[in-house]
Amino acid sequence: MVIDDSRMRSKETLKLSTNALKPEADLLVCEEPLEIQIAGRTWVTVMRTPGNDLDLARGLLFGEGIIRHVDEIERMRHCSTVPSVEAEDNVLQVRLADEVNVDWNGQERHLFANASCGVCGKASLENLRKDLGPMPLHWQMSLAELVQMPDRMRQHQAVFQATGGLHAAALFTRSGTCIQVCEDIGRHNATDKVIGWGLANGVDFTECVLVVSGRISFEIAQKAWKAALPILVAVSAASSLAVEVAETAQMGLVSFARQGNGNCFGALERFHTGDEAAL
Amino acid sequence: MVIDDSRMRSKETLKLSTNALKPEADLLVCEEPLEIQIAGRTWVTVMRTPGNDLDLARGLLFGEGIIRHVDEIERMRHCSTVPSVEAEDNVLQVRLADEVNVDWNGQERHLFANASCGVCGKASLENLRKDLGPMPLHWQMSLAELVQMPDRMRQHQAVFQATGGLHAAALFTRSGTCIQVCEDIGRHNATDKVIGWGLANGVDFTECVLVVSGRISFEIAQKAWKAALPILVAVSAASSLAVEVAETAQMGLVSFARQGNGNCFGALERFHTGDEAAL
Repeated sequence: MVIDDSRMRSKETLKLSTNALKPEADLLVCEEPLEIQIAGRTWVTVMRTPGNDLDLARGLLFGEGIIRHVDEIERMRHCSTVPSVEAEDNVLQVRLADEVNVDWNGQERHLFANASCGVCGKASLENLRKDLGPMPLHWQMSLAELVQMPDRMRQHQAVFQATGGLHAAALFTRSGTCIQVCEDIGRHNATDKVIGWGLANGVDFTECVLVVSGRISFEIAQKAWKAALPILVAVSAASSLAVEVAETAQMGLVSFARQGNGNCFGALERFHTGDEAAL
Repeated sequence: MVIDDSRMRSKETLKLSTNALKPEADLLVCEEPLEIQIAGRTWVTVMRTPGNDLDLARGLLFGEGIIRHVDEIERMRHCSTVPSVEAEDNVLQVRLADEVNVDWNGQERHLFANASCGVCGKASLENLRKDLGPMPLHWQMSLAELVQMPDRMRQHQAVFQATGGLHAAALFTRSGTCIQVCEDIGRHNATDKVIGWGLANGVDFTECVLVVSGRISFEIAQKAWKAALPILVAVSAASSLAVEVAETAQMGLVSFARQGNGNCFGALERFHTGDEAAL
């Protein structure tokens, strides 16, 4: 199998298997830093799996509240003036519209900006609630269909299948179509990439479901809320604070969605079982 | 089962199981922000599972290079002057020795300080290599024993067993004794906690193995290197950059350590198979 992909790399390993050791080629998922610059200044550096860098940047800029709309990004391009060729792919220069004001002081702790005002989960939530409000209830989805989505997402996870080392996030429409899957070594990056892709492609998130491969922490639930995604499905556990986000946001949340099973939290009105029977 | 634990919380859920929906109590892993203050100033806020906060702070201060030795921490205590009772447990005040200089400017991007000088994996690695150097090779460990460690760690993961939602990190001695297991919703936090515990208890990391429940990214491998832990074992995949760290650091790295199997990278001289047969 020839691998020509910036997302994975072949590497010799010694494999211990049923008590025997043998040399073998293993496929590793790539991890490289990406420095995102705004107007020539470093905004943030994240470790990520190369690929979909523009979507990642869009998703991060949106999730962190730098932009409210994707049109506020005037241009993004990888940098060609860095000293080494290798680093060219790892610096992304972003030019924002003139009217966008980046508060650099507020950005210092930007990866947890929401807690800056009061350090408990409740305070963070209260801030989000004031800013975003609960999401309107206007459609329902079959629970049986929702819990199948992680398996359907996995079918699209090319790099995961090869390396076993990637997280994924996917967007499904309310009619059940999988419209995008993004993979990354980081859970948060995969979510930022898929939301960034949706922003670039004019996706109406209010008509979509977000599916993630791992667990649901506060940050993942918050990203979904900011994008106005009404239903969030995950293969693994949800944290206490993620469930509180779902309740406050009027979001439908399904954890442990595996083999036709799942645990439901938040706005249960968003789910139905069989035909039209509402919960 | 009565749960009286700040690390998990009982919550009503609707459980979909074999096509039937029923209300049931689910145990959620707790997630709350922790603000760490140095000399009254916010240094960082992390989302974590409450418990072992002092170890988490020690591990983070050490991992981020603020302190070189645990004695440089004069005192740590939870804050009692915040407005709400709930937030008291979420603010930790740290007093460092007078001779410790915190470079606040350099801290702005502290969560990825190593890439600030050159944005590619190689540059980050080169910096670490200059700072830390390769770890000396002075003992070996049985590979068969190493790949069993994740299972042995799991036996101590009380909260994971209840919630299915936690990562863990453990320290084993070279004689194979598990001396500490720390759990947290975050992979990085679990590693910081167990290293912080080791620092507080005078553990000689050069005689230990670090075991982690998830995958091995650059950051986890870097934390192990900074603590001088010569062997790192994980249940899941290692990234390309983590493997490069292992090679540069002369660290033995085992990924996919499951059911007696595992993939070996880095300093293979650290492993032996059966009796005294070196690889």
